Amino acid sequence: MRFKYWLIGNPLHTVQAQHEQVSVFIGLGAFASDAVSSVAYATEEMLLVLVLVSSAVNFGPEIAALITGVMLLVIGSYYQTVHAYPAGGGAYNVARENLGVYPSLVAGAALVVDYVLTVAVSVAAGIAAITSAIPDLYPHRVALALGVVTILTLVNLRGLRESGRLFALPTYVFIACVLWVVGAGMARWLTGGAAVAGVAEPVAPVGTVSTLGVWLLVRAFASGCVALTGVEAIANTVPAFKEPAARRAGVALIWLGVILASLFIGITFLAFELGIRPRPDETVLSQLGTSVFGPGLPYALLQISTALILLLAANTCYTGFPRMASLLGRDKFLPKQLAHVGDRLVFSNGIVILGAAAALLLLIFQADTHALIPLYAVGVFLAFTISQIGMVIHWRRAGSPGWRWRAALNGIGALATGVVLIVVASAKFVHGAWVVLVVIPLLVWLFVTIHRHYRDVDWQLKISPDAPLGALNHTVVVPIPGITKPVFNALQYARSLSPRVRAVYVSLDDQETKQFQALWMQWNPGIELVVLEAPYRAIVGPLLEYLTIVEGERHDDLVTVVLPEFVPRRWWHHFLHNQTALLLKGALLFRKNIVVIDVPYHLHQ
Amino acid sequence: MRFKYWLIGNPLHTVQAQHEQVSVFIGLGAFASDAVSSVAYATEEMLLVLVLVSSAVNFGPEIAALITGVMLLVIGSYYQTVHAYPAGGGAYNVARENLGVYPSLVAGAALVVDYVLTVAVSVAAGIAAITSAIPDLYPHRVALALGVVTILTLVNLRGLRESGRLFALPTYVFIACVLWVVGAGMARWLTGGAAVAGVAEPVAPVGTVSTLGVWLLVRAFASGCVALTGVEAIANTVPAFKEPAARRAGVALIWLGVILASLFIGITFLAFELGIRPRPDETVLSQLGTSVFGPGLPYALLQISTALILLLAANTCYTGFPRMASLLGRDKFLPKQLAHVGDRLVFSNGIVILGAAAALLLLIFQADTHALIPLYAVGVFLAFTISQIGMVIHWRRAGSPGWRWRAALNGIGALATGVVLIVVASAKFVHGAWVVLVVIPLLVWLFVTIHRHYRDVDWQLKISPDAPLGALNHTVVVPIPGITKPVFNALQYARSLSPRVRAVYVSLDDQETKQFQALWMQWNPGIELVVLEAPYRAIVGPLLEYLTIVEGERHDDLVTVVLPEFVPRRWWHHFLHNQTALLLKGALLFRKNIVVIDVPYHLHQ
Repeated sequence: MRFKYWLIGNPLHTVQAQHEQVSVFIGLGAFASDAVSSVAYATEEMLLVLVLVSSAVNFGPEIAALITGVMLLVIGSYYQTVHAYPAGGGAYNVARENLGVYPSLVAGAALVVDYVLTVAVSVAAGIAAITSAIPDLYPHRVALALGVVTILTLVNLRGLRESGRLFALPTYVFIACVLWVVGAGMARWLTGGAAVAGVAEPVAPVGTVSTLGVWLLVRAFASGCVALTGVEAIANTVPAFKEPAARRAGVALIWLGVILASLFIGITFLAFELGIRPRPDETVLSQLGTSVFGPGLPYALLQISTALILLLAANTCYTGFPRMASLLGRDKFLPKQLAHVGDRLVFSNGIVILGAAAALLLLIFQADTHALIPLYAVGVFLAFTISQIGMVIHWRRAGSPGWRWRAALNGIGALATGVVLIVVASAKFVHGAWVVLVVIPLLVWLFVTIHRHYRDVDWQLKISPDAPLGALNHTVVVPIPGITKPVFNALQYARSLSPRVRAVYVSLDDQETKQFQALWMQWNPGIELVVLEAPYRAIVGPLLEYLTIVEGERHDDLVTVVLPEFVPRRWWHHFLHNQTALLLKGALLFRKNIVVIDVPYHLHQ
Repeated sequence: MRFKYWLIGNPLHTVQAQHEQVSVFIGLGAFASDAVSSVAYATEEMLLVLVLVSSAVNFGPEIAALITGVMLLVIGSYYQTVHAYPAGGGAYNVARENLGVYPSLVAGAALVVDYVLTVAVSVAAGIAAITSAIPDLYPHRVALALGVVTILTLVNLRGLRESGRLFALPTYVFIACVLWVVGAGMARWLTGGAAVAGVAEPVAPVGTVSTLGVWLLVRAFASGCVALTGVEAIANTVPAFKEPAARRAGVALIWLGVILASLFIGITFLAFELGIRPRPDETVLSQLGTSVFGPGLPYALLQISTALILLLAANTCYTGFPRMASLLGRDKFLPKQLAHVGDRLVFSNGIVILGAAAALLLLIFQADTHALIPLYAVGVFLAFTISQIGMVIHWRRAGSPGWRWRAALNGIGALATGVVLIVVASAKFVHGAWVVLVVIPLLVWLFVTIHRHYRDVDWQLKISPDAPLGALNHTVVVPIPGITKPVFNALQYARSLSPRVRAVYVSLDDQETKQFQALWMQWNPGIELVVLEAPYRAIVGPLLEYLTIVEGERHDDLVTVVLPEFVPRRWWHHFLHNQTALLLKGALLFRKNIVVIDVPYHLHQ
């Protein structure tokens, strides 16, 4: 306990909980880090597929434009959600309200997977930004990634004072840096002075855009769609904006669309024009930085801000995931322990689970962004699609003026993201998407199973609170190892419970048993003594058998077992005594109609 | 539990315990494996020191003769012990009876160390016999040694039917093999046809027997003294011989002396005459076998019988060590759990401890016989010396006819082994003997500490069995999370204990608390309701604080806490419920004057 308090701080009083409400500028910076940070790896993922066939590379800008189109459609859809659900329009809530339990559970499962993957991908990409600048750290990337996850987990367990201002800063620095590199690159390109050192040649031989080529373009599109991850964050956190919150959140969303589209198109365009190709040891954005800036302060700033915004994106999941888990816990689809805030006013259990799951993923996939990405987009687009189908139903039910075109916008959005979902799931299936397609149904099954258990328990424990309390008659059994102070106390306690007390002695040695019986006769406490044989030299077995006999004989309400127990003063003294009381308690927990009473006797030495 | 029964067999009934009594021939074979097997490595250990200076090698036979002299003296001493202690003359018993508690504890500690080292050394040497014949197995010797220890441990946990006939066989086969190789070697040597392939040259340059040389001879003597290990085994097991047991055991001891002396002198003489030198990958005995027999069946038989007798020697410790530990446990110098036989009528705890300790040693010393030997002889000679000093006192006290020359024989034995003890401890000090010289006092300290604890506890628990049982008055506290069936049962139980019952509700949420209070008012069970605030959202803290308040208020005998607990039907269901009852029980165990009652409610789904 002391170690825990040292690590994460002393418990906080409930009244210490605080909430901050933010402006559009701060809110956009603080909540959009997940979305904006995606541009740090989206172009690279797209390129990674396209370079497989040299003729396909030319289609890069077209694919990027298509992705941007879907992105704007999704942002438009969420603009509507923000106004319809000012209390927070997460996919789980929207689906639960409009589509029913099962779709909401699918959305919940998708979001759970999504949060874990966001942490893993963002940390891996953040470490990649650092190792691109400092190649000596490349061999240590897994250890670095695990270290970062550990720190994020501890910091969040402590409870991060959510300072919007502080969180917004790295986002704007990153946006500025990327705009700078894109602007400077464009200027160079326009004046015709662009030149990149060490451009990689296409890996595969030249080919035409055949069937294989088309499939490649589809896969490149699927890979580039990771640029859309995180755009739902603002819709989830509407109440954090100052009033009028919905309007402010809407404005922030529009700005997010503008920024995201500019950055993504800018980076992709320049990467193609400068002939940059993915390399295992340096990210595309880092290559862009070196080729435009050369080594120096601006390049360093770009890499640092990239790493920072990615860590911030990972950090936002430490708020999002535990909140999601607490909703599922509150609705009894996950253990209800997840629904409560811990010592430090944060959902501690959710934070620990998120950290452990992300660390496991980073370990399995060796902190490799490219290996993690194929798992990523499926959950995101599944949640998008469910959320927007929910919005279509919402508008239809509301029937307010103009519901038709609102429903149509969300419908088109749902169609687009649904198509992308199918494309991503099939294009990336063998590369890892299958894992998510297995995990999501498993999670839904888990939610349903847990829910069923809670429902069963509630039903079994329910009582009509008009029953009067009756009087109970006990048969009391006291297992005794001899005549000692704890035994005396236990017998006295048993006697005060009921007149029907039986002291039970298990005989291990005939000699000792005779001595004990003589002593008992001499004491004559007025309690029946039962001596049991232990042919296998174990004490618990004969006692359990005897209790079964007593159960059969008794005519009163229940059997109570009173255990004399002495509590040693030091923990290691436990090793010097038989753990009979403990074993007996463990065994009796599973017997019905038996109550166990511990009468402890504390040793003072 | 099921796994345990599958591994080591079902429990055995006490009446299934059996004992066999054996003849001199069988007894010698069965109990002397430890002693006889020492010749498999004693010569090699001596040589290993002597080869360091080439001129020293010539003194080999003289040193071997000296060791044989000490050996016969020790056997003579034990011949007397056997007749004085026909019930079993282990060093611990003899010292306890004649010298008092502390010397007996030193002997006990020495024997405990001795048994563990016998297992480790014998297994290491047995594996060396195998890897000498099959060099491909040499890199796997640690794994093989650990495997052998595991098998020995499991077999002994199951309870080995101690078949004297079966155990005697490998000993006699080994004796026959060694006599054969020595005889054939002698014949060859007499006819002048001896020749050894690949004799190693002395490692160090030639020198004269200077001060350094004398020290070297002393060290060689100390190393060779491992030949004496195990000769006490027959004295420990006198009752296993047929009547007259003492006489039969004495005859067996004399035969042991004859056999041991012949084998040791024979092997050492031939090894010197054939110019055999220790090699890391092949034992001296194996080299002797190849040079005399050449490869073939006789050589294979020699190696197999060597490995077998060494494993048998290790196996005898699995009877000796647990018996020693049970004596110490019975006398309350070790945990009393060691004093009881387990399910399979063997001292299971002792067997497991021995196996674990030997495995640890084999792992640390990489199953290297030479590294383990320096630790070995100290414990053995310490036990010898204490035992013989005890015998001197014994004869003096007995004062029977001829006690003087009996005491003198044991006195000379004690002197000889005492000198050897000092020689061994100082000559081998830096090579590992210091470990044992640290461990033995630590063990004695442990024995004394454990004994003191048991004495203190006995004293604290003691009661004069004439006190009458009084009547107790309780204040009962029932922590309740709501109104459910388990709570109803717990309150009913509490009510039947005492009229002074307080139900305690910890408030985590104002809304819920108000609802609960209303429900309670409506039910009105006639029990006082206390509502506690939980500012840090944890339930256990406020409850413990409240119990302190109750403790201060009460005027009766003690506070009883009744815990309503529901027991889920499947183990994993526990993860879905708060472990408040468990946490509370853990915390209350350390509070005085508080009795805890578990009223379980068993879920049926």
